[in-house]
Amino acid sequence: MNSPAVAAPWDAKVDRLAEVAVTVGLGLARGQELVISAPLDALPLVRRITEHAYRAGASLVTTLFADDEATLARYSYAPDESFDRAATWLQDGLAAAYRAGSARLAITGANPALLAGQDSGKVSRANVAFSKASRPALELITRHEINWTIVAAATPSWAKLVFPNLPEEQALAQLWDAIFRTTRIDVPDPVANWRAHGAQLQSRVKLLNDLRFSALRYKGPGTDFTLGLSDDHLWCGGGSTAKNGIAGFPNMPTEEVFTTPHKDRADGTVTSTKPLSYQGTLIDGISVEFKAGRIVRASAKQGDAVLQGMINTDDGARRLGEVALVPHSSPIAQSGLLFWNTLFDENAASHIALGQSYSTCLINGDSLSKSELAAKGANESLIHVDWMIGSGHLDVDGVSASGHSVPLMRQGEWV
Amino acid sequence: MNSPAVAAPWDAKVDRLAEVAVTVGLGLARGQELVISAPLDALPLVRRITEHAYRAGASLVTTLFADDEATLARYSYAPDESFDRAATWLQDGLAAAYRAGSARLAITGANPALLAGQDSGKVSRANVAFSKASRPALELITRHEINWTIVAAATPSWAKLVFPNLPEEQALAQLWDAIFRTTRIDVPDPVANWRAHGAQLQSRVKLLNDLRFSALRYKGPGTDFTLGLSDDHLWCGGGSTAKNGIAGFPNMPTEEVFTTPHKDRADGTVTSTKPLSYQGTLIDGISVEFKAGRIVRASAKQGDAVLQGMINTDDGARRLGEVALVPHSSPIAQSGLLFWNTLFDENAASHIALGQSYSTCLINGDSLSKSELAAKGANESLIHVDWMIGSGHLDVDGVSASGHSVPLMRQGEWV
Repeated sequence: MNSPAVAAPWDAKVDRLAEVAVTVGLGLARGQELVISAPLDALPLVRRITEHAYRAGASLVTTLFADDEATLARYSYAPDESFDRAATWLQDGLAAAYRAGSARLAITGANPALLAGQDSGKVSRANVAFSKASRPALELITRHEINWTIVAAATPSWAKLVFPNLPEEQALAQLWDAIFRTTRIDVPDPVANWRAHGAQLQSRVKLLNDLRFSALRYKGPGTDFTLGLSDDHLWCGGGSTAKNGIAGFPNMPTEEVFTTPHKDRADGTVTSTKPLSYQGTLIDGISVEFKAGRIVRASAKQGDAVLQGMINTDDGARRLGEVALVPHSSPIAQSGLLFWNTLFDENAASHIALGQSYSTCLINGDSLSKSELAAKGANESLIHVDWMIGSGHLDVDGVSASGHSVPLMRQGEWV
Repeated sequence: MNSPAVAAPWDAKVDRLAEVAVTVGLGLARGQELVISAPLDALPLVRRITEHAYRAGASLVTTLFADDEATLARYSYAPDESFDRAATWLQDGLAAAYRAGSARLAITGANPALLAGQDSGKVSRANVAFSKASRPALELITRHEINWTIVAAATPSWAKLVFPNLPEEQALAQLWDAIFRTTRIDVPDPVANWRAHGAQLQSRVKLLNDLRFSALRYKGPGTDFTLGLSDDHLWCGGGSTAKNGIAGFPNMPTEEVFTTPHKDRADGTVTSTKPLSYQGTLIDGISVEFKAGRIVRASAKQGDAVLQGMINTDDGARRLGEVALVPHSSPIAQSGLLFWNTLFDENAASHIALGQSYSTCLINGDSLSKSELAAKGANESLIHVDWMIGSGHLDVDGVSASGHSVPLMRQGEWV
């Protein structure tokens, strides 16, 4: 595994992305430990991030690499019992690292369709086992106990899916370009640009929080659905401050404002507008029906078995944990690209997430117990899976407690 | 980080090495988890081992990759406090994995001289911090609670050190060849060859255990030294059975028979006969003086500061934890190569190790408490570092409790 001896044309921007991820996305504090998770193909970005983290004063940087080939070997050769197993010792270790103050940086970029040809029962079981094992670590993440961020690295297998008609090297270059553009690296002063962008999202957050809607009503092709917001919900977006006091952007890019829906108040039919890559499987053409907050019918034209496995993870996996509004004019939507990667596609369209809610999207949510959170309608689950329901044809209304409707979005744009 | 699309000429033998490592070295049990540690450059071997492990029934295979570049970035940019830190959460996680029954396979092959140009004070501090953090995991290893093995992968940086005058590709091919030869992969039936080789070493082990020497006396250029064996010492070699009942070979290759010296009985002067690569630093020309088991004077012509840091880790780091006899006719010695890698060089020459002893090299050692082990002379330390003292000029006598001497080795060969 030799690194290419010649410099790639995107090296300088990869370095810039690394620096912005460490300083703006993570806000890494001097003396803080950092744990990176990354696909092997993201090695060049990992190395740049490692250097910038140490330059920013990281006490120690540890990277956990994942190898798509190892995952495929498991599906090809492992005994059946393997698919109910996960590396609990490693997930517990990560939780221990976070409790000890470590920051977390996840690099996304693995093959979105890696497991497309694999047995969906095994895929679902492996996902459930992993979700259970990673629960303690995920709780610390969703409660924002520590500063964390997710950034993307272009990889050959991902680039091939986004640009199927280009040769590998060109596809890779195009995907890097798309990442740099949408992650605001391709501007004269990325740091200032991120600050301004964050402030703009925060002003929309303030507006929505002042309006204090009780519910949102969605209408679009295949979608006719009302979703209650949790009591004391708080719209979030444009960055956040973790409980350790460090401000950053948990997602790079980010174009969304989002809050916590009420787990018992969602009714109607919703149809997805973009495919979803979930743990290496593509799920497309999702249609679900909610009654009193719970999915009572779900189907997908592609990846149906994995979808069923996902919503059967636990009761909370059939209920909503997040609702996010993204205008159709978002730079990511306007790129016209389907990324097959939630970090990008969820920032190109309004979306909802099944599963675990963010306590940070409730007033004083951080100080509430699990039962207090549940009483306000905040959902709990082993999973948190976003899927896209927005498009240029979606209308969204805000509904007040008295039943009064206010147009929020028309044809996918803010009113 | 693309894998080479074309097959390397050594691929078939790498696959064979992987299979032998899993079945003979590790004796992996069906349903057992496996944790691999490896340098990134060992990826091709990691992938073959992963497949063979799953074929052998592994429930889950997790690889922790180490990147030499990340280590160098730490030395270049990390704040000073970094060098007293280690990823305790990860080492604790590994210990938890072993306690839960996971097997362990370590792949050696990282650049033996990686840290040659770095500040030796920082290197020593980082080594001590790592030793402390990895103590719980190392204890489970040295007590053979689980089956574990170490194998080697040829990497460009290592190959360059062994074959400095060859172009990279040729050096890599030569190093792979040397690994295949010494690890007994390059024979018609490697499994049968390993079984026969193990039986041969075990017959020598039996002979030495029947003789029940009280001490060994070494004479050679720069070496004049007597080393007491621990009470109830047990010679080991030719594979072992871990406490989980699984038989395997913890080192591949292995040519040594070894036992536990008495921590309070070593006197005289010892000079190293080969350089030692210790955590990325080369230490050469070691000369030490023992008095009553303890090093009272130590120097190295190269890497002296790291040597001093090493023996100052704790009191046990100045005392012996292992003594091993290897004839100068060992196939590894006869290759004439200096590997700059302990797994190979220690199997080319008689050696001693400072630090932690193996309780398995004592009669009923596994059932003894720490204080009982200490009472028998078994050493305890955070470190375990082998260094080579054998050559074609070394004579070794066995000394009985009554003071009677028996020639064991003359000019490096068994008598």
